[in-house]
Amino acid sequence: MRTFIVKANKAHTKADFKLRDLPGTSGRIDLLCRVLNSAFLLSYSFRKNVRVWLSLYGPPNPPKAIRFEGQEMKPKTLNPDELSTAKLIIKALKVGETLREPSKEVQVLPGIYVSNMTFEDIVRRTLKSSTLYYLHEEGRPIGRVNFSQNVAFILGDHEGLTPEDETFLEGIAEKVSIGRKSYLASHVVAYVNIFLDSLTPPP
Amino acid sequence: MRTFIVKANKAHTKADFKLRDLPGTSGRIDLLCRVLNSAFLLSYSFRKNVRVWLSLYGPPNPPKAIRFEGQEMKPKTLNPDELSTAKLIIKALKVGETLREPSKEVQVLPGIYVSNMTFEDIVRRTLKSSTLYYLHEEGRPIGRVNFSQNVAFILGDHEGLTPEDETFLEGIAEKVSIGRKSYLASHVVAYVNIFLDSLTPPP
Repeated sequence: MRTFIVKANKAHTKADFKLRDLPGTSGRIDLLCRVLNSAFLLSYSFRKNVRVWLSLYGPPNPPKAIRFEGQEMKPKTLNPDELSTAKLIIKALKVGETLREPSKEVQVLPGIYVSNMTFEDIVRRTLKSSTLYYLHEEGRPIGRVNFSQNVAFILGDHEGLTPEDETFLEGIAEKVSIGRKSYLASHVVAYVNIFLDSLTPPP
Repeated sequence: MRTFIVKANKAHTKADFKLRDLPGTSGRIDLLCRVLNSAFLLSYSFRKNVRVWLSLYGPPNPPKAIRFEGQEMKPKTLNPDELSTAKLIIKALKVGETLREPSKEVQVLPGIYVSNMTFEDIVRRTLKSSTLYYLHEEGRPIGRVNFSQNVAFILGDHEGLTPEDETFLEGIAEKVSIGRKSYLASHVVAYVNIFLDSLTPPP
């Protein structure tokens, strides 16, 4: 089982942005769409062993968390293009608007859930079943890590995690690196997935 | 220097498609946009050592070739989101509409050129300066290849290359694999770029 947790500090927590200008109006929801593409999609196939948490902290109602559960999602729910994926996020944010409870999850579509969970809530819940890694260019080279069967990777958005996030992760998530350059989140997820596929057995 | 050549057998060769529905109306220009993203973009940076050829064979006027030259492009020309990249392709196709010569290239923007070159023209031109590889799940594992400083990779679109294309490539492009699964073209390009970055010296 592979979990990817993306902390998106500017991503809007209400569907108040323009689908035709995601980079300029949504706090970079477009980036999250590409991460979902990289996390789940194969050519004519779908990774059921993947879970993605989007942890949204932008205006106007942070935090919002959207969970995508590969084992429950219908494969045709997620398509490769950005706009159709953005529509799923918009749907989740609309369902999430009336949520008041701090940790209750509401189903948006099969395998897609929205809640007011914090980044810390998501990390603590993930720690119960997975070994946690923080993808960072200064981490241990991914080729030298012995991965268990349940792995979870934390990524930042285009601005990275905050110092507070990094302090929270100290001691609970090992820093792992796929290279010394700073790569786009969606490229990192694509690389990690293909790298994990090469392991015996793959997580 | 890294070259990526994408043969897109269904990609429209005229800007007759809807920007809001690229997957349904363009012969999968959306896929080409994601390949360009993976080929050129780093976090807050741009790969100048990359060239991408899009070889378009869809209706109504095949073939069209669009060349993206990293060393000449202005970094802000290419943005991460699909729609802004699709607009670059649309601009190139519009410039290409009046082209009659079989191999003349016309500049669309700095570093972006359109022509009526065939897939074979592109491959022959690339062979003059680069070692050619065909990315294919049954190829030699990428970790076992000794790459030279000028490398070129050929990829198919969502339907792959035709048997005729494969016959043409026999003997001139070694099959190389990044894994036994069938991956999306944009994920393959992201993986290959990050893998090549790890080599000493990187191509």
